[in-house]
Amino acid sequence: MQSKENPIRIGVVGYGNLGRGVEAAIGKNSDMVLTGIFTRRDPSQLKPLHAATPVHALDSLAARKGELDVLILCGGSKDDLPNQSPELAAHFNIVDSFDTHARIPEHFAAVDKAATAGQTTALISAGWDPGMFSINRVMGEALLPDGATYTFWGKGLSQGHSDAVRRVPGVAGGVQYTIPAMEAIEKVRSGERPQLSTREKHTRECFVVLEQGADAEAVRKTIVEMPHYFEEYNTTVNFITAEALQRDHQAMPHGGFVIRSGNTSDAARQVIEYRLQLDSNPEFTSSVLVAYARAVHRMHQLGQTGCKTVFDVAPGLLSPKSAEQLRAELL
Amino acid sequence: MQSKENPIRIGVVGYGNLGRGVEAAIGKNSDMVLTGIFTRRDPSQLKPLHAATPVHALDSLAARKGELDVLILCGGSKDDLPNQSPELAAHFNIVDSFDTHARIPEHFAAVDKAATAGQTTALISAGWDPGMFSINRVMGEALLPDGATYTFWGKGLSQGHSDAVRRVPGVAGGVQYTIPAMEAIEKVRSGERPQLSTREKHTRECFVVLEQGADAEAVRKTIVEMPHYFEEYNTTVNFITAEALQRDHQAMPHGGFVIRSGNTSDAARQVIEYRLQLDSNPEFTSSVLVAYARAVHRMHQLGQTGCKTVFDVAPGLLSPKSAEQLRAELL
Repeated sequence: MQSKENPIRIGVVGYGNLGRGVEAAIGKNSDMVLTGIFTRRDPSQLKPLHAATPVHALDSLAARKGELDVLILCGGSKDDLPNQSPELAAHFNIVDSFDTHARIPEHFAAVDKAATAGQTTALISAGWDPGMFSINRVMGEALLPDGATYTFWGKGLSQGHSDAVRRVPGVAGGVQYTIPAMEAIEKVRSGERPQLSTREKHTRECFVVLEQGADAEAVRKTIVEMPHYFEEYNTTVNFITAEALQRDHQAMPHGGFVIRSGNTSDAARQVIEYRLQLDSNPEFTSSVLVAYARAVHRMHQLGQTGCKTVFDVAPGLLSPKSAEQLRAELL
Repeated sequence: MQSKENPIRIGVVGYGNLGRGVEAAIGKNSDMVLTGIFTRRDPSQLKPLHAATPVHALDSLAARKGELDVLILCGGSKDDLPNQSPELAAHFNIVDSFDTHARIPEHFAAVDKAATAGQTTALISAGWDPGMFSINRVMGEALLPDGATYTFWGKGLSQGHSDAVRRVPGVAGGVQYTIPAMEAIEKVRSGERPQLSTREKHTRECFVVLEQGADAEAVRKTIVEMPHYFEEYNTTVNFITAEALQRDHQAMPHGGFVIRSGNTSDAARQVIEYRLQLDSNPEFTSSVLVAYARAVHRMHQLGQTGCKTVFDVAPGLLSPKSAEQLRAELL
C-alpha cells in the first residue's frame, strides 16, 4: 500500500479536457501526487486547475524519469497516442485511453513491443468504452454463455456526430446527442433477447445554429440523410440561437448500458445490467485512468511488465485499500 | 486456452440446488467437463440432471485426484464449507461460495493456510453477493473516491426470512420476498446521495399458509414485529392456501442493485449502477462458480497458489477466449 508519505508519483502528458480531469482526480486520491503536467505548448502559457501544479515542457520528460512512477497520456487516439504510447512506454510505465476499437490489436502490439523491451508496464484503452463497458461485456459472456449482449449509449454528447453536423453547409454551430431507446432497453431487461435494428436502439437529436441566410429545411435534410452518421437513425433537428447553444449545451454528458441476458436453464432467465450516467464524460474517463495508474504501478512492482488491458487487471489492484481490508469491508 | 479435446475437469462436491446448477452450467461451457458429483449420500440414490453424470462417494475423492482439475464445493456456509474448504484445498484446487460476510477473514485464513501448504489454488466467496456485487463495490469506490455506495436487494426470495416466518406458531408454510424501494433507487440514481433509513430502502412481503384454527391477526402481528427480521421494515403479510404456495411460490428469484454515486468535480455527478435480475438465484450463483473455476485452473497453471477472492481475478481469466481474441472482439 501507498501512503501519503510515499505516494504514487503521476505525470500527465497533454492538457485538454482529459488532462484537466486527471489533475482533478488526483486531488481526490490521497495515495497519489501529481509530479507535473508535460506539454508541447509553452509551459508558461498553460494554466492548470491548481496554480501550484508544476508544468514542464514535454521534452524535459526524459530528465525527470526518476521522479515519476506512472505517466497518464491524455492525447487523442487519432494523432497522439499511436506514436506517443509506444515511445513513452519504452521508458515509463504508462496508461492511455486509446479508443479506436478497430485498431486496438495493432496499438497493443506496438506498445507491447516497447514495454517488453523497456521492462515497463503499459495499460492501453482504459476509460468506459473501451474500459468499464468492455469488462462487463467479457464478464457477462463468461457468466451467462447462453445469452446475448446489448450495448446502448447515451444520453450523451457525441463528438464525432457533433463534428459532422458542424461540417454541413449553412451550420454556424451545433451539438448532437445520442439517445438510447428506453422501449428497446425494457425489452432487453425482460430477458426475451430481442433482435433490434440500429433504428430501434438509438435516436439522435441535434441542436443547430444556422448561418445567416441559410435554408433551415435544406440543412435539416442534409443532416438526417447523411450516410453512416444519421441515415440509419430517427433524427430530430432543433434550430436554436447562438446564445442558447452557449448557455444550454456546453456540458459533456454521456453514459449508457451494457446488458447481458441469458438462460441458465430453459425456465431461468438471468439479466445483468451495467449502467453509467455521467455528467462529464471526460472527467469520468480521467477518473478511470487514475485508478488504472494505481494498478499499473502495483503490477510493475510485482514484475508484471509488457502491455496490459483492463482485462488483465484484478479489481483489487484498483483500490488504495489492502487486500485484507477489502476482504473484511467490501467482500 | 482449453479445447474440447483437453477440457477442464470439474468435480462437484455436494448436490443440492447449487450442485444441480453447476451440473447445468458445465453443460453450457464447452471447454469443461464434469468428471463427477461427489456426495456423502449413497451415490446410487442420487439422481443427477443428466443420467450420464457419474456419481461417486465423497470419500473416493482422494483416489481420483489425478482426474480432477478443480473442485466446486456446493455445500452450505454454516455447516459444510468451514471444514470442507480447508480440508479439500490441501489437495485440490477449489472454488466455494462461502457467504457469511462477517466470517470471511477467518475462512480466508484457514483456506489460505491449507492451499499454501498444498500449493493449490483456492477461491472463496464466489457468487453474486459476495461476488459480483463485491467487485462493483470495490470498483465503484476506486473510480469515484468522492462518493457513496448503495446496495439494494431484490425483488427476491430470502431463505433466512422465509425460515423465520415458518417458525412462527400457527404458520404451516410460507415465503418472504425482499423488495427494493424504487423511490429510494430513483433518488440514488439522481446523484444526490440521499441518507436512507433501513425502512426506506426495502419492504418485505410474506405469503403465509395458516395452520388449521390459527389466529391470522396474531400471526401477522408476530411476523411484522419480529426483532432483527421485520420490525425495522414495512411488512405485508398475505394469507394464501397451501395450493397457492405450491403453485406460485416455488421459484427462487433474486437480484438487486449496487449503485455508486460520486462527484469528479463540484458540477459533475457520476452514477455507476450494476443490476441483477435473476429468475433463479442458485443457478446464477452456480454459473459464477463455474466461470471462477476456469480462472482458478488458469491461475494454478500460472503458479498462483494460495487463497484468492474475486478481487484477485482479472476479468479475462473468466472467459474461455484468448487474451488476443478478447482484445479484438470485446475491448
